[in-house]
Amino acid sequence: MIREKYTRLAYHRFPRTTAKYLGHPQADTAPLTEVLPDFHPLPLPQEDPYCLDDAPPNLGYLVRMQGGILFVYDNQKMLERQEPHSLPYPDLETYTVDMSHILALITDGPTKTYCHRRLNFLESKFSLHEMLNEMSEFKELKSNPHRDFYNVRKVDTHIHAAACMNQKHLLRFIKHTYQTEPDRIVTEKQGRKITLRQVFDSLHMDPYDLTVDSLDVHAGRQTFHRFDKFNSKYNPVGASELRDLYLKTENYLGGEYFARMVKEVARELEESKYQYSEPRLSIYGRSPDEWLSLARWFIQHKVYSPNMRWIIQVPRIYDIFRSKKLLPNFGKMLENIFLPLFEATINPQDHRELHLFLKYVTGFDSVDDESKHSDHMFSDKSPSPDIWTSEQNPPYSYYLYYMYANIMVLNNLRRERGLSTFLFRPHCGEAGSITHLVSAFLTADNISHGLLLKKSPVLQYLYYLAQIPIAMSPLSNNSLFLEYSKNPLREFLHKGLHVSLSTDDPMQFHYTKEALMEEYAIAAQVWKLSTCDLCEIARNSVLQSGLSHQEKQKFLGQHYYKEGPEGNDIRKTNVAQIRMAFRYETLCNELSFLSDAMKSQEITALAK
Amino acid sequence: MIREKYTRLAYHRFPRTTAKYLGHPQADTAPLTEVLPDFHPLPLPQEDPYCLDDAPPNLGYLVRMQGGILFVYDNQKMLERQEPHSLPYPDLETYTVDMSHILALITDGPTKTYCHRRLNFLESKFSLHEMLNEMSEFKELKSNPHRDFYNVRKVDTHIHAAACMNQKHLLRFIKHTYQTEPDRIVTEKQGRKITLRQVFDSLHMDPYDLTVDSLDVHAGRQTFHRFDKFNSKYNPVGASELRDLYLKTENYLGGEYFARMVKEVARELEESKYQYSEPRLSIYGRSPDEWLSLARWFIQHKVYSPNMRWIIQVPRIYDIFRSKKLLPNFGKMLENIFLPLFEATINPQDHRELHLFLKYVTGFDSVDDESKHSDHMFSDKSPSPDIWTSEQNPPYSYYLYYMYANIMVLNNLRRERGLSTFLFRPHCGEAGSITHLVSAFLTADNISHGLLLKKSPVLQYLYYLAQIPIAMSPLSNNSLFLEYSKNPLREFLHKGLHVSLSTDDPMQFHYTKEALMEEYAIAAQVWKLSTCDLCEIARNSVLQSGLSHQEKQKFLGQHYYKEGPEGNDIRKTNVAQIRMAFRYETLCNELSFLSDAMKSQEITALAK
Repeated sequence: MIREKYTRLAYHRFPRTTAKYLGHPQADTAPLTEVLPDFHPLPLPQEDPYCLDDAPPNLGYLVRMQGGILFVYDNQKMLERQEPHSLPYPDLETYTVDMSHILALITDGPTKTYCHRRLNFLESKFSLHEMLNEMSEFKELKSNPHRDFYNVRKVDTHIHAAACMNQKHLLRFIKHTYQTEPDRIVTEKQGRKITLRQVFDSLHMDPYDLTVDSLDVHAGRQTFHRFDKFNSKYNPVGASELRDLYLKTENYLGGEYFARMVKEVARELEESKYQYSEPRLSIYGRSPDEWLSLARWFIQHKVYSPNMRWIIQVPRIYDIFRSKKLLPNFGKMLENIFLPLFEATINPQDHRELHLFLKYVTGFDSVDDESKHSDHMFSDKSPSPDIWTSEQNPPYSYYLYYMYANIMVLNNLRRERGLSTFLFRPHCGEAGSITHLVSAFLTADNISHGLLLKKSPVLQYLYYLAQIPIAMSPLSNNSLFLEYSKNPLREFLHKGLHVSLSTDDPMQFHYTKEALMEEYAIAAQVWKLSTCDLCEIARNSVLQSGLSHQEKQKFLGQHYYKEGPEGNDIRKTNVAQIRMAFRYETLCNELSFLSDAMKSQEITALAK
Repeated sequence: MIREKYTRLAYHRFPRTTAKYLGHPQADTAPLTEVLPDFHPLPLPQEDPYCLDDAPPNLGYLVRMQGGILFVYDNQKMLERQEPHSLPYPDLETYTVDMSHILALITDGPTKTYCHRRLNFLESKFSLHEMLNEMSEFKELKSNPHRDFYNVRKVDTHIHAAACMNQKHLLRFIKHTYQTEPDRIVTEKQGRKITLRQVFDSLHMDPYDLTVDSLDVHAGRQTFHRFDKFNSKYNPVGASELRDLYLKTENYLGGEYFARMVKEVARELEESKYQYSEPRLSIYGRSPDEWLSLARWFIQHKVYSPNMRWIIQVPRIYDIFRSKKLLPNFGKMLENIFLPLFEATINPQDHRELHLFLKYVTGFDSVDDESKHSDHMFSDKSPSPDIWTSEQNPPYSYYLYYMYANIMVLNNLRRERGLSTFLFRPHCGEAGSITHLVSAFLTADNISHGLLLKKSPVLQYLYYLAQIPIAMSPLSNNSLFLEYSKNPLREFLHKGLHVSLSTDDPMQFHYTKEALMEEYAIAAQVWKLSTCDLCEIARNSVLQSGLSHQEKQKFLGQHYYKEGPEGNDIRKTNVAQIRMAFRYETLCNELSFLSDAMKSQEITALAK
């Protein structure tokens, strides 16, 4: 019920079945527009995806930050009266109460036992299902014409744009630029213009001799449990100059090289036809200009692709900016991140480029090394962002709460205007404290990684009941945090958690040209997944993604938003109806178990 | 010493270092032509690979089979006198004595302990090497210009031609033929000509609806420990008609479809530039015409590719042919397999097509389910092939001995004429009895699989000392006999056994377009292999392969045949010299240990 409240307020998703058992039978009949997040439909083939002329009129509202959250005022008078526009704002006190409620729950002995046993039961039940129905499932798939694992839609639900090409691709691109335009001016140092040739000369290196070994962007044994070493792998040949030149959107070339590579990756996706990807682009919050610059990069280099939908990742590195005196307090960082979005939403005519770019952005991610420990414990006594001036980094849950709060306000404002909304999809549970998963349980539509659910049966069971999508990247984990054979993906899938497969960083982790297929192939081989398993994961990935309602109908079936077999069109998904029915019945069974127990408790209480 | 004798007689390979320690210091200075097998160099780009005009003159020798081995007589008179041409023939009695000597050795307690401890030591030594030198190795590779894992040569050392395309490729090809030529007559049944459309009609199937699921050629969980089920996966849609039509060299179309697919695979290899493959084509021994038909298939459809070298696989299915009364005895099967080769060698002018085809054939393989048990125990009392008339299949070692014996005679005859020789490269140690590995220790140049070496420390140590190449296919094993995580490849590699990676059957096991890269990628990911490990495996694969001396010089370095660092050209192989030195010193150390012990034993014996 707690999560339901938070998702509803932010236009996130909540399973209808679970809502029904929580006592909201109307969930099933509510109009789709109320239940589904709003993603912009793609421009038609004959339309110009970069058309700047359709921005709605300006509203002239005013926006001010207060306590780390942006408030919207209809006009100057309302601002003076401190009467903000009626948009739901999450209340910090309620939030911390809800947090501590769940924290208490996950450490409660009997609850732990209950959840542990239910999860074990779910796993055994699936094994039984597999033994009894495996051949029937396969038979269903065999008689399903024209659709197989290769031509069901798959979305790479978690991938960083700066590492979306594989190492060989980056190498080839670097060599190509050097061959074709060595004398082009590509950067400026202290007013001196520097050509590409000079860049490589200063690194004492001839790109002809460059190899994937000397490029050294691949994660090896050295990166295991060393996120710091892993991050430095983003520097080709260990040189941050090359990272700036090739993997950034802001540089002397206006991010041209990076855009060209991303477009090459996009062309491959379009050719493969059945693969989609949701790359993350960074907004740091150092300055409010970042958004405009990113939008211009997108438009100028024509980076749009029907097979890509964009997510904005915000690295949790306030402490670095603060220690370099780039920011006065944490509130300023939040303002830099969110104020431009509010302005573009209120006055799109004045921010046409950003307004356009936001059509193709479907969510936000929060990224960084989760294993870094924070001394601060987030509570309603914590200093609010505008007075968070220390050089210490706020803890994970602090970041999440304030990002969520601002996204929620923004979503409500955008929904009022008929504009698309955003999903909050943070990295969570890759390492560090288990409490991260509690924060995300409240604030996130879906998460990336979720490995640590392994360690908390209560949270794992809650993530199951709420069917929170989890984008897992076992190859990434294998290089950083957890050996492949110990990865819980298979176990989560068996229990019925809503998992998808994603690549995270093809540049660092993958060997072949088709990173997402490599991910699927290895999982299939190592865990002996059946075709039905693979297609279920692929279906999950489309559901989890920010693809539009229209696309999901096309890829999954007309009624994809319905749960259980009626939401599945096997002709499109290649997931056996037997499997769908099993999942649905199993979930209903778990939920009715709980709701029956609650009812009988109520009756007992009444009788007393 | 025993193996050395057998390899020398058959023009197989034996490591010079080991030979030196066995007391043959001349091994190092012997002319290359005596030490290396003879593979035909490739035709130059301007030459016609199908030129039939360069066959050497006929010799007119006579060939007769006696006791399962072919004997060559200079003329009729010599035949009457029973005085065969002087070619070495292995003596069955000596062979069985040697066999039982090694069998005694592998069960001898102290020997087992010794080998077990040395193998443990080898493994620990490598771990130590890795801890100390990993970074230095990588540094060496980083400073090696222009060469990395992607552009070192790799040979797929074990792959069956009938499964060399992946499932998606086969599917696409079937659909394509149906779209472009549905009315072509593709087969004949009881005199009735049948079109492609009629074939599919009779199967009640529209190829448009066909999917990889309904094609059903992929090995799944159902094939584990079920070689029989696996074999039936060679039938697309479970229909042997389609196997005949698409995956056979002999059918109404003269194997055209199969040739076209193989050529498509070859084109992909040629484009990839750095990948080579050694596909197996079948000769069954049912009739002596098989060879001519295969050679004609090869020439007529122009199947030659510089990136492929052919191996002939002989399935061990005498029992099936015998029970169908296609063969009177086992000797006839051997004669059908080998007599045409002798004739083409003696009178190439009369067998120009086969003579040409044999230029591109580099070896023989012996294939079938090794886990099938045989009641017969091979000894010098066993009935010889010409009187093996029972319906029972001869045991594995019987097959191996007679194939080896005939290959040896054939090789010596061909060497006399200056023609290329063949390697015997049987499947061995995939399952079944450990004694298979003993037979192969004597008779094989190198083997495929070798999994069961895990179970015999003595044999494993012998395979190490003799550096017998082993083509391993962990993904194939994972579907059939051994889970990926339990595969001994990593352990073998660490200890210094001469292992390579191969795909076995991309159609059944692989998911991506690049099966060999998938194999390397998964091994690299699951076992966290370093670049140096991967490049060492790739180098092993080229050494193991039937690529010609000239190609090996080009791909590995001028002196590739030398052992240790001087045989390695890092600019071509990307294997660190540190690694090469470690391997070489370790092997020398093991060998000198043994030879010192032998010497001191001799001295003790002398003193007495």
